[in-house]
Amino acid sequence: MKKVAVLLSGCGVFDGAEIHESVLTLLELARSGASYQCFAPDIAQLHVVNHLTGDIDEADQRNVLVESARVARGEVKPLTDMKIDEFDALVVPGGFGAAKNLCNFAVAGAELIIDSGVKRFITQFTQVGKPVGFMCIAPVMIPQCYEAGVLGTIGSDPHTAAAFELQGGQHQITKVDDIVVDEVNKVVSTPAYMLADNIVEVHNGITKLVASVLNMA
Amino acid sequence: MKKVAVLLSGCGVFDGAEIHESVLTLLELARSGASYQCFAPDIAQLHVVNHLTGDIDEADQRNVLVESARVARGEVKPLTDMKIDEFDALVVPGGFGAAKNLCNFAVAGAELIIDSGVKRFITQFTQVGKPVGFMCIAPVMIPQCYEAGVLGTIGSDPHTAAAFELQGGQHQITKVDDIVVDEVNKVVSTPAYMLADNIVEVHNGITKLVASVLNMA
Repeated sequence: MKKVAVLLSGCGVFDGAEIHESVLTLLELARSGASYQCFAPDIAQLHVVNHLTGDIDEADQRNVLVESARVARGEVKPLTDMKIDEFDALVVPGGFGAAKNLCNFAVAGAELIIDSGVKRFITQFTQVGKPVGFMCIAPVMIPQCYEAGVLGTIGSDPHTAAAFELQGGQHQITKVDDIVVDEVNKVVSTPAYMLADNIVEVHNGITKLVASVLNMA
Repeated sequence: MKKVAVLLSGCGVFDGAEIHESVLTLLELARSGASYQCFAPDIAQLHVVNHLTGDIDEADQRNVLVESARVARGEVKPLTDMKIDEFDALVVPGGFGAAKNLCNFAVAGAELIIDSGVKRFITQFTQVGKPVGFMCIAPVMIPQCYEAGVLGTIGSDPHTAAAFELQGGQHQITKVDDIVVDEVNKVVSTPAYMLADNIVEVHNGITKLVASVLNMA
């Protein structure tokens, strides 16, 4: 049985991991016969956003690991508990948490810095050629985790695609439920809610991404 | 296109709507060609539970409608905004939120009282024979929303089954991915995480529940 790490970034599209993308990742891993373990950084969220109004709640503070535990039904571990020998692959769902908590793309754009613990976590997979899947906005972290020229997609948004290329990646415009596979680097990406109008489109892209990641694992 | 209301109770298994059940409900409704609108009561959560430790955070307070918006990507409305003529059916995911926020089963057991706004919301469907699906612990509310003898399941837990019967319902022991259909009352229930060991079992039960509810709508 293949074992896959899932890197969460909170719980909610505007300040954490996108919930539909996260749950559908777990569903497709399990349906494919893989086991999974969720991980998240034990750090403060950049923001707490009221998802009803869209406003930032300046008075509230939440922890990425603690909120990620909601998606994982309590079964989430801090990044430092991951032993790379125990895992065959990694999947990173999107949501603004990927761009606010895992890295700072939401505020820094193409000058983004990946959280040091997150970068160490991801590159343990990339350095030994274990496949990684990134979805939605999470692929903005791909160029800094691979050699220049790595292939990836964030869909078709010109600003985000330009940031991907400025960092040394090679961006490919993609339809909502398609994937981009860089077979040399063993990295897969799909637009998910960067483009999706509904949960079925997201599910179709994630199904393909999970199949591709497991196929290379 | 059939239009289905989904009644959420927060965001997280220990103090709100069970996230996997909620997302898989939305997925299966959309895959079946139905449209959906999420609703939640605009009330304070009974508890805020740290999902990493399982401890109640006495200092924290969260609102059921605001947290439900995380599951619904912002697209959630208060209960009072629902116009029954616009909907063909209702689905109620589980999680402790159903037993702490929608009703007080978690503290009162068989003496449970359903929140008055929630009861008004659900019975608008039941009084005109529009089908309703309840999953996980949410079926404890079935007896108070239908005539005595109504059929339902919460899986096989004797304590919860006894509470169901004490209120006048007729409980049927069910396997994890099966459904109980009361065709007279047009109410469907499935155990979901009351029994499930994994997300695939939950998905199988919800797929059957959604198909049955839509079939009667």
